[in-house]
Amino acid sequence: MNMRLSKYLPVLDWGRSYTRETLSNDVIAAVIVTIMLIPQSLAYALLAGLPPEAGIYASILPIILYAIFGTSRALAVGPVAVVSLMTAAAIGNIAETGTMGYAIAALTLAFLSGAILLVMGVFRLGFLANFLSHPVIAGFITASGILIAASQLKHILGIRAEGHSLFDLLVSLVSHLGDTNWITLVIGVAATAFLFWVRKGLKPLLRKAGLGPKLADVATKAGPVAAVFVTTLATWGLGLNGQGVAIVGDVPQSLPPLTMPSLDPTLIGQLFIPALLISIIGFVESISVAQTLAAKRRQRIDPDQELIGLGAANLGAAFTGGFPVTGGFSRSVVNFDAGAETPAAGAYTALGLALAAVALTPLVYFLPKATLAATIIVAVLSLVDFSILRKTWAYSRADFFAVAATILLTLGFGVETGVSAGVILSIGLHLYKTSRPHVAEVGLVPGTHHFRNVMRHKVQTDDSVLTLRVDESLYFVNARFLEDLIQNRVAQDCPIKHVVLMCSAVNEIDFSALESLESINRRLGELGIGLHLSEVKGPVMDRLRKSHFLDELHGQVFQSQYDAWTALTTTRPRPMPAAAE
Amino acid sequence: MNMRLSKYLPVLDWGRSYTRETLSNDVIAAVIVTIMLIPQSLAYALLAGLPPEAGIYASILPIILYAIFGTSRALAVGPVAVVSLMTAAAIGNIAETGTMGYAIAALTLAFLSGAILLVMGVFRLGFLANFLSHPVIAGFITASGILIAASQLKHILGIRAEGHSLFDLLVSLVSHLGDTNWITLVIGVAATAFLFWVRKGLKPLLRKAGLGPKLADVATKAGPVAAVFVTTLATWGLGLNGQGVAIVGDVPQSLPPLTMPSLDPTLIGQLFIPALLISIIGFVESISVAQTLAAKRRQRIDPDQELIGLGAANLGAAFTGGFPVTGGFSRSVVNFDAGAETPAAGAYTALGLALAAVALTPLVYFLPKATLAATIIVAVLSLVDFSILRKTWAYSRADFFAVAATILLTLGFGVETGVSAGVILSIGLHLYKTSRPHVAEVGLVPGTHHFRNVMRHKVQTDDSVLTLRVDESLYFVNARFLEDLIQNRVAQDCPIKHVVLMCSAVNEIDFSALESLESINRRLGELGIGLHLSEVKGPVMDRLRKSHFLDELHGQVFQSQYDAWTALTTTRPRPMPAAAE
Repeated sequence: MNMRLSKYLPVLDWGRSYTRETLSNDVIAAVIVTIMLIPQSLAYALLAGLPPEAGIYASILPIILYAIFGTSRALAVGPVAVVSLMTAAAIGNIAETGTMGYAIAALTLAFLSGAILLVMGVFRLGFLANFLSHPVIAGFITASGILIAASQLKHILGIRAEGHSLFDLLVSLVSHLGDTNWITLVIGVAATAFLFWVRKGLKPLLRKAGLGPKLADVATKAGPVAAVFVTTLATWGLGLNGQGVAIVGDVPQSLPPLTMPSLDPTLIGQLFIPALLISIIGFVESISVAQTLAAKRRQRIDPDQELIGLGAANLGAAFTGGFPVTGGFSRSVVNFDAGAETPAAGAYTALGLALAAVALTPLVYFLPKATLAATIIVAVLSLVDFSILRKTWAYSRADFFAVAATILLTLGFGVETGVSAGVILSIGLHLYKTSRPHVAEVGLVPGTHHFRNVMRHKVQTDDSVLTLRVDESLYFVNARFLEDLIQNRVAQDCPIKHVVLMCSAVNEIDFSALESLESINRRLGELGIGLHLSEVKGPVMDRLRKSHFLDELHGQVFQSQYDAWTALTTTRPRPMPAAAE
Repeated sequence: MNMRLSKYLPVLDWGRSYTRETLSNDVIAAVIVTIMLIPQSLAYALLAGLPPEAGIYASILPIILYAIFGTSRALAVGPVAVVSLMTAAAIGNIAETGTMGYAIAALTLAFLSGAILLVMGVFRLGFLANFLSHPVIAGFITASGILIAASQLKHILGIRAEGHSLFDLLVSLVSHLGDTNWITLVIGVAATAFLFWVRKGLKPLLRKAGLGPKLADVATKAGPVAAVFVTTLATWGLGLNGQGVAIVGDVPQSLPPLTMPSLDPTLIGQLFIPALLISIIGFVESISVAQTLAAKRRQRIDPDQELIGLGAANLGAAFTGGFPVTGGFSRSVVNFDAGAETPAAGAYTALGLALAAVALTPLVYFLPKATLAATIIVAVLSLVDFSILRKTWAYSRADFFAVAATILLTLGFGVETGVSAGVILSIGLHLYKTSRPHVAEVGLVPGTHHFRNVMRHKVQTDDSVLTLRVDESLYFVNARFLEDLIQNRVAQDCPIKHVVLMCSAVNEIDFSALESLESINRRLGELGIGLHLSEVKGPVMDRLRKSHFLDELHGQVFQSQYDAWTALTTTRPRPMPAAAE
C-alpha cells in the first residue's frame, strides 16, 4: 500500500529516512541557492514582461509542490530563461505589458501548462517529449539564447524595443538607438563585463587563492548578487534614477498573494497551443537536467511522475501570482553542487525566498533594470552553442537540416514557430527516410551460413533466386515502395523463379504492408514466380499467422536464409563476377 | 533526348505506335464511356452543389490534358463522388449554392488543387501520398460513401437539407420530412430500386440470355442511362415538374466556356487546406485505380508523372467551368473493360461529351434530380465496405483504431476532419509503436551459431554477458527508451560485465540515438561494464565511423554475434533452466 502511494508521493519515500546530517546539507544548499535566486527571479520576471515580484512568487509554492510530487532529489524549479521568453511571446500578442490583463494571462498560461502536464502525467504520456529530437532541442535552445540576449539589449541601452523575431528586435533597437541613456549604458556594459569576468576569470583566481573547486564554483555563482549590490548602491548614492536610469522601483512587501487564472474560453483558446509548447519544452529541459544529476548519484527519475511534479508546480504558480515554471539548469546544478540531498532543500529555498519577499524587497528599489538585463544576457549566452551544426553536418545531413531549420525559423519567426517546425521537420524527415528503405540484394558468403550485400561483399548468387534483405519495418509509408521495387526488378530479370524476402530487419508489418505483400504475392504468382520469406521475427510471424497471407503465399517461410538457399537453389550456384579471381 | 521528353510527355511514347486497330478499340471504348458519363457527370455536379453542365465541362478538357501528360493507358479522369463531396464541403462554408461566388470558388479550388499536384509532381513528392495508410483510406472512402448517400436523400424526398456531418444531415432531413414531395419520392425510390436491380440482377439475366461476360458487364453500366431516359420521359409526359418534382431544367447548349479562377488571397487562404486534402485524396484514389489496371497489362505507372497529369487536368477544369477532378474508379474500369488501349480513348470520350454538351443538353431539361440522386446513391453504396474493421481488428489493433477513428470522425465531423485525423493518427500510432521497440534478450542456440530470444527458445546464456537484440531503428523517438532500459537492467543484475547490442535489425542510428549510445557507454563505463556492438549493418557502420563514438567505446564492434559470444564468455556457459532436461 505504502509502496504504491510513495510512487505518487515520492516525499513519503525520502521523508522517512531524513536525518540531522541530511538536514544540515540541505539547509546549506538552500542558503546558497536562495542568494543566487533573488536576482535571477527578478530578471526572469522582467524577461517575461511581468513585475519583478512575480519572479519571486513563481519560485516559492512551485518549489514546495515539486518537492512533494517530483522524483528528482536535486532539481530546482522556478522561472527559467527559455520558458520566460516563450511566456512573453505567448502573451505579447494578447495584452499590453504592465497591464492587469497581461498578469492574468500569465497566470492562465501557468494554469493551462500545469493542467496539460498533469494530464500527460496521469495518462503516462511522458514519451511525447521524445518527439523532439536532441539536435532540434539544441538548435532551439541556441536560437532562444540569442533571441533572449537581443531582447535584453533595450534595457542595457535604456530604450524601448519590441519584436518576437531577431529581425524585428534589431530593427526596433536600431530605430530607437537615438534615445540611448548613456548612464544606463555604462551600468549595463559594466555589469555585463563584470559578470563575464566572474564566469571566466574569477574561478581560476579563487582557486589560486586556495579555495576548493566546489567553493570557488559556488562563489562565482554569487557574482550577480555582487553586481546587484554595487549597481543598486551606486544608483541610490548618485541619484541616477533621476537621470533616466530605469530602476525596479516599488516591489510589494508580502507573501505570494492568492490569485486566480482566467477561465475565459477565448483566452484559453488563444493560450492553449503556447501552453502546450511551453509544457513540452519545459518538460524536456527539466527532465534532461534531472536525469543528468540523478545519473551522477545512481538515482532514478520517473518521467511520468516528473510530469505530475511539474504540473503541480505550475498550478501552484498559477494560484500565487507567478507564471510558467520548470526545472532550471543553472539553479539545479548549484543546488546539487552545494550538496542538496533531498527535495527538502527546495522547501528551505522556498522559505528563504518567502523571507526575502517579506523583508528584502525595499532593498531592490534602486536596482537598475540594466543590471538584471546583464545577468540574463550572461546567463543565456552560455546556452548558445553552434557546435551542434558542425556535429550533425558530419554525422547526418537530415539531422543537420532539422537543426539548421529550427535555428533559422526560431530566429526569424520566434520561439513558437521554431519549435513547432522543429518537431514537424524531425518527424517528417524520419518518415521520409523510412519511406525509401535500404533494400540489399544478398548472396551467400562462401564457406559460411551468412548472407551479405552483393554490392559490398564477394558472395555466391543464383540466377533463379533473387534474395532481398529489407532493412526497414514495412508499414504504410513504404508499403508501395517495396511493391514497385520488386515489380521493376522482376521485369528486368527473366530467369528469376523465386523471390526471397529476408526479414531479419523487419520489425513490423502493418496492415497496409500486409496488403502490399498480398499484392506482390499475387503478381509474382501470375508470372509463375514464388515468393518466400526467411528469418521472420517471432512477433511479426505471430501477426502474419492471424491473416490469410500465409495460406495464399506461393512459396514458403524459412527459419533461416541458409535453409531458403539450400531449398531453392537447384542449379549449381555460380560465383559472382566480383568473386572470380 | 526524345527518351527524356517522352518521360514528361508520355503521349510521344504511345502516339508513335498508334495503329488503325488501336484506333478502333479506343473509339469503341470511348462511345461506351461517353454514354455512361453523361448522367454521371450531371449527378456529380449536383453532388458538388454546382449547375449540371459543370460536370460535363469538368470531363472534357481535363480528359484531354491527362491523355497528354498522364502515364496510365486506361485511367478516365473527371468528377468523382468523394472529391465532389469534398468540393461541396470546402465551398459550402464560403458561398451559397447556386451563386456566382460558389462557381468561382469551385474553379479556384480546382486551380489550387492543380497547382499543388503540379508542384508535387515537379518536386517528385509523390511519396507524400504514402502517408495515408491503406486502412485509413478504406475507412475514409466507406464513411464518405455513407455521407454522400445521406446527402442525396433530400433529392429523393424532394426536400431541403444541409449539413456536413451525418448527424447534421439526418437532423436536417428529419426536420424537413413534412415537406416530402410524394411524386418525387416515388420516382426516386423506383429509380434507386431499378439501379440496384441492374447491378445485382441484370447481369446474371443477360448472361443467361447468352451475352458474353464483358458485354453483360458493360450493358449493366448503361442502367443509369435507361433510368434517366424513362424518368425524363415520364416527367415530360405527365407534366410532373408542375407538381413539385425538381428537374434539371435549362442547361446551356455550348462548349466549355473559358473561365478564370479567383486570385483573391483571402479566398485562396480559405481554400488552400481543402485543396491540399482534395489533391492528396484524389491522387491516392487515382493512382490506386491506375496501378490496378496497369498491373493487369504489365504496364508501368510513374507516380510523379501522374501528379503532373492530374495537375494539368485540374488546371484544365479551372479554366473551363469545371471543378476538382481525378481518375475515377468506375469510369476507368469501364474504359478498360471496353477495350481502351491508349489515352486517346479519353480524347475521343472528350469529343463525345463535347458533342453532348452542344447538342444533347435540351434533352435533360425534364430529367428529375431524384433520378440523378438515385444514380449517386447506388454508385456510392458500393464504396461502403465495413469489412476493413473486421480485418484490421484481427491483424493489428493499432490499424483498427486508426480506421475506426477515421470512420467515426468523418461521419461525425465531415470529410476534412476525418481525413486529416486519419493521417495524423496513422503517423502518431506508428511513432508510438516505434517509441517502445521490442528488445529481446538473446542466447546461443546450442550447437549452432544462431542467437534467439531467451523467452521463446532454449538457449545458452552467460551470467557476465547481457546480449540485447534491438528490434527497431534507433532514432530520437526511442533514443531515451534504450537508455532507460539498459540502466534498469544493469541496476538489477550485478554480475554483468559486458552488454552486447545486437544490431541486426537496427537500420538507422540518428544523431539523437548516437548521443544516447554515448551516454549509455559513459554510464556503463563508470560501472566498469563494457558496451559492445555486433552485426552492425554497413550503412549504419559507415555513419558511426564519422563520429567519435567508436573511439570512446568501452568495448568492441563484432562482425557477428557469435564472434562476440566467443570473445566475451570467459566462464563456461551455463544452460538456461528451461533447457535443463
